[in-house]
Amino acid sequence: MSKVRELELRLSRIEEELHLFQKISRLMVREVPLRQELESIVELLVEYLECDSCIIYLKERTDLVLCASNIAPASAVGNVRLTIGEGLTGWVAKNRRLLSISREAYKDSRFKKFQQLDADTFEAFLSAPIIARNRVVGVINVQHRDVHSYSGDEMELLTTIGEQIGCMLLLAKLDKDALEQTLSMNELLSAGVLAGAGR
Amino acid sequence: MSKVRELELRLSRIEEELHLFQKISRLMVREVPLRQELESIVELLVEYLECDSCIIYLKERTDLVLCASNIAPASAVGNVRLTIGEGLTGWVAKNRRLLSISREAYKDSRFKKFQQLDADTFEAFLSAPIIARNRVVGVINVQHRDVHSYSGDEMELLTTIGEQIGCMLLLAKLDKDALEQTLSMNELLSAGVLAGAGR
Repeated sequence: MSKVRELELRLSRIEEELHLFQKISRLMVREVPLRQELESIVELLVEYLECDSCIIYLKERTDLVLCASNIAPASAVGNVRLTIGEGLTGWVAKNRRLLSISREAYKDSRFKKFQQLDADTFEAFLSAPIIARNRVVGVINVQHRDVHSYSGDEMELLTTIGEQIGCMLLLAKLDKDALEQTLSMNELLSAGVLAGAGR
Repeated sequence: MSKVRELELRLSRIEEELHLFQKISRLMVREVPLRQELESIVELLVEYLECDSCIIYLKERTDLVLCASNIAPASAVGNVRLTIGEGLTGWVAKNRRLLSISREAYKDSRFKKFQQLDADTFEAFLSAPIIARNRVVGVINVQHRDVHSYSGDEMELLTTIGEQIGCMLLLAKLDKDALEQTLSMNELLSAGVLAGAGR
């Protein structure tokens, strides 16, 4: 491949990634229900990463509950559960670490099979914690049916999206009253946000 | 310039922009005080856009109050105020529109001079509304001392950053109790976020 062609491909790829972030940022400001936001993220990621599976789990006490996916049947949403530490996904939540496996993910000693998901037919697995206010509040997984070595850019992307979903979760629960307070400058000032400010 | 060199420059520029977004996303998840977040955004933007001025105004009732800037003296923070509709900045808030002026911004009929700021010596002006939950809650401005035609990419960037600051404002005011609720799956379910979910 010529140098020009190679650079053009890289440029087009990174432009797509930038648009992905802009779309997610736009989701965050629109008054979109959380469920719809999560499904949009799954769709955007499947399209961008050309992966076969994308699943978002959210934490409920000591469990991780499946909340959005491009492959799970509707019955799995809210019902497929893992405990923290269980399976590859539970490992990511427990250790708060990115996990990247390029082949035979189903042979990993941490792997756990679910009847409702076809995860045992996927070779490659990339998973990042969903972080809100510095705490793990969920996990986002991506899987490729074929062997796939995840690039540093792909890892970085999923990490950032894990952070953005964390922000979405927080934003989703703000009620109108809290919102009014949030937008009051006096509140910000009295909270010391601006007080004593100097540079 | 050779085609290869041109592509390399564009690639390096867009990679920088991507890193800028990743850094801002990271600011949002860390438990950083809002004031520090706003100052970090100003710094990141000044570095990336190579602009001479960057100012963030937040809305308080019918006013816009200066909250962070690379050029305003400390005394201006919390004190420089505009009413919605006043000056170029007030116009952006009132009309909820991006404003881009490449030269002689100080001659614009909407321009308003402040003693504490040197805005009247800047040629170029780019300004975007800060949006939270679909409402204008502030304005972010960027200025170049010399004539500068803002690119579509630069306009898109400031628009997205205006949205991200909006999210930061909302997140900054969540108290610990609200946070606990937010992270409870039961809350999400009872709010109908996941209930009746099918695809």
